[in-house]
Amino acid sequence: VSPTRPCIGVFDSGFGGLTVLRALLDRLPNADFVYLGDTARLPYGTKSPETITRYTEQALRFVQQHGAEMLVVACNTASALALPALGPTAIPVLGVIQPGAEAASTAAPEGSTALILATEATVQSHAYARACADHGLQTFEKACPLFVPLVEEGWTDTAVTEQVADIYLREALDSLAAPPAAIVLGCTHYPLLRALLTRRVAALGLPIPIVDAAEATAQRALAAVPHAGDRSHRPQHIAFFATDSAAKFQRLGPRFLHREIEAVTLVDLDA
Amino acid sequence: VSPTRPCIGVFDSGFGGLTVLRALLDRLPNADFVYLGDTARLPYGTKSPETITRYTEQALRFVQQHGAEMLVVACNTASALALPALGPTAIPVLGVIQPGAEAASTAAPEGSTALILATEATVQSHAYARACADHGLQTFEKACPLFVPLVEEGWTDTAVTEQVADIYLREALDSLAAPPAAIVLGCTHYPLLRALLTRRVAALGLPIPIVDAAEATAQRALAAVPHAGDRSHRPQHIAFFATDSAAKFQRLGPRFLHREIEAVTLVDLDA
Repeated sequence: VSPTRPCIGVFDSGFGGLTVLRALLDRLPNADFVYLGDTARLPYGTKSPETITRYTEQALRFVQQHGAEMLVVACNTASALALPALGPTAIPVLGVIQPGAEAASTAAPEGSTALILATEATVQSHAYARACADHGLQTFEKACPLFVPLVEEGWTDTAVTEQVADIYLREALDSLAAPPAAIVLGCTHYPLLRALLTRRVAALGLPIPIVDAAEATAQRALAAVPHAGDRSHRPQHIAFFATDSAAKFQRLGPRFLHREIEAVTLVDLDA
Repeated sequence: VSPTRPCIGVFDSGFGGLTVLRALLDRLPNADFVYLGDTARLPYGTKSPETITRYTEQALRFVQQHGAEMLVVACNTASALALPALGPTAIPVLGVIQPGAEAASTAAPEGSTALILATEATVQSHAYARACADHGLQTFEKACPLFVPLVEEGWTDTAVTEQVADIYLREALDSLAAPPAAIVLGCTHYPLLRALLTRRVAALGLPIPIVDAAEATAQRALAAVPHAGDRSHRPQHIAFFATDSAAKFQRLGPRFLHREIEAVTLVDLDA
């Protein structure tokens, strides 16, 4: 919108990546944003690396055409599978897994174990395990398949979700010889369970820090585009695009973004 | 396999349709089966009617090529969206929604209300409401988005699932002036929750019959291919095909089918 103001593209398979956009909005007040949710083709978790790489290349072209000078891939699956396969790109591309692993290594001492909470697809990719290993961290990756539907039901603070969290945490702890030194929220939906998880971890008597990959990614984006962190009195401009289900995006999105979503434009990436 | 023995094709977006296959195996002992799970392209709930119709046409051709003389569409979304759009077909095609509505109308008196439990996509299609209206039944369609992931976690008999069921049943009952006269399990995964739901409905003090669309569909298939119901001493032959994730199919499928799945062949319907 302004020639001197940076524009950052954010790409996710759906609206979960809005938690990453929220972290970016907080840390980059002097930037505008283009958010693309590929809602027509989610979930990515069941698709092949080749297909997900093709989708990510389409998203990259799309946000470039809309003026972005950087792409943040907010989707864990795309970060895990497409980023290693992308060739040289015209603008920088940042995923969520490397920053998440880096933040875990800051919170947990070298040689200790980080507990990664993620979807089944992200766990099966072992992308966090590899990224954490690069920082000298052990990992235990725990799939929490009920967390996404619980968040989408809006049950982020209910007794049912507390019990599910207790079961998942207990299953993970039972598999580990010692408590983990950090817990990583390795899915875009999980920041909405942060308060609940913090309570349940405390209830277990374990003062384990909880690391949010979204927060860590926003910090890395700021390092890449430092003047986006300048103070600004002009409101940030956000253009929202989705490939399907714009109504659901507009209805559920505000829970993730913590602000209203006025308009979502439907786009066809194959066209 | 035998030239005189009927072969029936069963099609679903995943492995949930194995509950329909199970009902078919029980009622049609003198039939062989071809099961096709389109696991690469699930879920169908977020896709357009045109796309789902195209997928269903591909499935129809596939099971015909494998000798089926009838196709049972076990997927509620495909039954709702594709069946009305299919032109004349070379073999009969049977969905799950019409039989489910018919069974509800047998269990509930004319003019009464049936409670339909289903996924959000099936609820939004209002296919059960239309089909039940044809039988003089009112409906209240209740989306239960946590039931599928709870079943896939294997939590079909846990306190958490009981609480989720209680919340969904209570929300539905609170929206109705009088208790429903029947409850329809309008999703292929829900028969695995039948025992739990029966208990929770009884705990509410309401003797409401629970109707299973899978059972009703098997009855209709038997009416269409009567000699498939003949006694047979030869074991039924089942060929399993999936478009992706054969391992998950083989691992979770037996919970739905109540028998082992020895081999799943990967196929590409687009090829």
